[in-house]
Amino acid sequence: MKVLLLAATLLWPVTAGASEPGAHVDPVGHVALALVVILLMAKLGGEFAVRLGQPAVLGELIGGVLVGNLSIAGFSGLEWIETDPSIDMLSRIGVLILLFEVGLESTVRQMLKVGITSLLVAMIGVAAPFALGWGVGAWLLPEQGPYVHAFLGAALTATSVGITARVLKDLGRSQSNEARVILGAAVLDDVLGLVILAVVTGVITAADRGGSLSGSDVVLTLLKAIGFLVAALGLGVLFSRRLFSLTAKLRARGVLLAMGLAFCFLLSWVSGAIGLAPIVGAFAAGLILEDVHYRDFVDRGEHGLEDLIHPISYFLVPIFFVVMGMRTDLKSFLQPGVLGLAAALTVAAIIGKQACGLGVLGKGIDRLTVGLGMIPRGEVGLIFANIGLALSIGGKPIINEATFSAVIVMVIVTTMVTPPALKWSLGRVPSISGKMTYDEGAQ
Amino acid sequence: MKVLLLAATLLWPVTAGASEPGAHVDPVGHVALALVVILLMAKLGGEFAVRLGQPAVLGELIGGVLVGNLSIAGFSGLEWIETDPSIDMLSRIGVLILLFEVGLESTVRQMLKVGITSLLVAMIGVAAPFALGWGVGAWLLPEQGPYVHAFLGAALTATSVGITARVLKDLGRSQSNEARVILGAAVLDDVLGLVILAVVTGVITAADRGGSLSGSDVVLTLLKAIGFLVAALGLGVLFSRRLFSLTAKLRARGVLLAMGLAFCFLLSWVSGAIGLAPIVGAFAAGLILEDVHYRDFVDRGEHGLEDLIHPISYFLVPIFFVVMGMRTDLKSFLQPGVLGLAAALTVAAIIGKQACGLGVLGKGIDRLTVGLGMIPRGEVGLIFANIGLALSIGGKPIINEATFSAVIVMVIVTTMVTPPALKWSLGRVPSISGKMTYDEGAQ
Repeated sequence: MKVLLLAATLLWPVTAGASEPGAHVDPVGHVALALVVILLMAKLGGEFAVRLGQPAVLGELIGGVLVGNLSIAGFSGLEWIETDPSIDMLSRIGVLILLFEVGLESTVRQMLKVGITSLLVAMIGVAAPFALGWGVGAWLLPEQGPYVHAFLGAALTATSVGITARVLKDLGRSQSNEARVILGAAVLDDVLGLVILAVVTGVITAADRGGSLSGSDVVLTLLKAIGFLVAALGLGVLFSRRLFSLTAKLRARGVLLAMGLAFCFLLSWVSGAIGLAPIVGAFAAGLILEDVHYRDFVDRGEHGLEDLIHPISYFLVPIFFVVMGMRTDLKSFLQPGVLGLAAALTVAAIIGKQACGLGVLGKGIDRLTVGLGMIPRGEVGLIFANIGLALSIGGKPIINEATFSAVIVMVIVTTMVTPPALKWSLGRVPSISGKMTYDEGAQ
Repeated sequence: MKVLLLAATLLWPVTAGASEPGAHVDPVGHVALALVVILLMAKLGGEFAVRLGQPAVLGELIGGVLVGNLSIAGFSGLEWIETDPSIDMLSRIGVLILLFEVGLESTVRQMLKVGITSLLVAMIGVAAPFALGWGVGAWLLPEQGPYVHAFLGAALTATSVGITARVLKDLGRSQSNEARVILGAAVLDDVLGLVILAVVTGVITAADRGGSLSGSDVVLTLLKAIGFLVAALGLGVLFSRRLFSLTAKLRARGVLLAMGLAFCFLLSWVSGAIGLAPIVGAFAAGLILEDVHYRDFVDRGEHGLEDLIHPISYFLVPIFFVVMGMRTDLKSFLQPGVLGLAAALTVAAIIGKQACGLGVLGKGIDRLTVGLGMIPRGEVGLIFANIGLALSIGGKPIINEATFSAVIVMVIVTTMVTPPALKWSLGRVPSISGKMTYDEGAQ
């Protein structure tokens, strides 16, 4: 039997590049176990959320929170998942896929078409929460200085276009005027929020290096972010159609998916290499690609790109949310000030987006619905919080555990209040007869 | 500008668990770049292969060989991809997905039904190549001892059920009698080959620890491997249907895919934990799951599990083949003895499988076609070679670069000769009128 046990430890190899030098067991075994836990928690949590009429993403977060806090019940056998480098990388790839997928739901032309109303709604929807978030920080955390206040403001800006779109779809109202305004504004919001994040991060980083970010530096950062988007979108729109026409001539299996993913990863890498978040590139790649690019594929009976991305997204995206949940330390909720800060941030997040209604110019569009539709922060808020955790000045992290947890609570609450609020609000407006069901199970 | 550059290096975080402690750039940027290179090489290589009437997997390998040997042309800027831990892990997950997918194409019942003919074909198809491979080793590498000879024999045993199935499908002959025998035997072959691998690996590992594997140890290893398969298959068949009936009651999105993947990863982990290769578990999971398990999902308009796995497989599986190709050092082909060993192994691999025809008992089944259909070694041969690279006795690897390269050449050649040989052989037999096209592009 000893020989068998020895054999067991060596049966599967660790190659030169494996992540645990010296280990003699195939590391994929551990990752497989982590994926089992994550997938089960994601689906059980998602199911729980869906049955309560909430978006599945909320349940995935809460599922992660449960597993990540089993140590309260004395079990810490799964805590390694939170920090496993392979799971961390899979979750990062998952966010790229999510933003790519969300980008695919819109086109560059739609973004340009939504016009003045969406732009106004987006700008108010960024400015008001930013100011309110900053104010909450200055009020409740005066000792933590302007960097933290600016970061809190930034964390409140972006609407989660994924959650908004999914809620509207679940409610059967994707084609309403309100939906178009909300989705257009949410798209612009994401971009504006990411630019704000770039500026705030740049300022904090500069301070960490002992310098300060001058007004011209801010303008440069802004120009760089906008420049990347304009260049990527412009060049992408110009050349991507030709690229995919060429691609359609290839006959190997899965060419469309591989080329779509390669395009997403290429822009992610470029955007990361010039100092933006890789998700900006992934989102831009999604915006650029349109149905027309892969009509050749669909015409010959293949699935469209969105159909092909969905299964990959079902697999990888929940990893991000469950791991985010796992990294939320429930004990920090009990720290003095967390719940107060969380409540104030949540109120600021909700009120800030209600101001959006003021940006609606035309008639026949319900201002309250637009404001409510802009509330959920979802994955983008979580990404911001995660970035905040990694920023530091003089080796001291900008955002402490308590502030991080407060942002998570804000994300959870804003995500949770949206579906019932939107359902109620759209029910008030008789306009278009949409199905009022929560049929999340059907594809 | 300096501030911008500083900001660029810190804009995206490395969290506690990230794989490069101290690094300040989001590691997903590098992985994204590696994925772009891998996906492009996979599809360009695959396209090249398909246009020559070869399976795409061959082109993926060759694409990897090209990128991995750019250093011959003086460019080594992409060599880090070969050893990147995240890419390594993605390729390992890719193999799990591939074996799961291949397992899904068969059922436990089909395996039991193929009966005596398939079993005889499988056993001859394992025994003959094993003996010939051992003989080639003893003849050409007498100084390397019986462990290397045994390993070479083991590397020749397994038929690549994935490649065989895909070639038959490409030729429009999946439903012929020959196809049923080949596929049934290839499935059994995989299992027998993995058991042989377990035994050979166990013997070598025992020798490394200074002991030796006695006859009873071999029997124990065999029993353990077979025991796992019987237990997994038995319990799986008994309980999986009930499990998926329960799952079908869940309404969250992507439940079927998540549960299927969780099942695959669970058995992979168990199989790894008891000392078998994780791929054995992934394959067993695929065999256990049948269409009937997810009929509830399909009935309500969702995609079946195989449809959902395909896009994930398109994404992750080529990573394995391209990386395997990249790890092939072309320079080692020029070492004395490699080409001779490769040629002898290839001849042994082909002749060994031709003996399979002797196992065909009934009439109306073309023996030559069965023998030819068993030739390709494909991914399983590569997995064996990879395992060989990691085995060592007294710190000295069992398989050196030259022997590894010879196995790779054998895999490439056996994979390459099969499609034209099968096309010719099936054309000889008028039996069932199948479409004789290489229509790989259509799904």
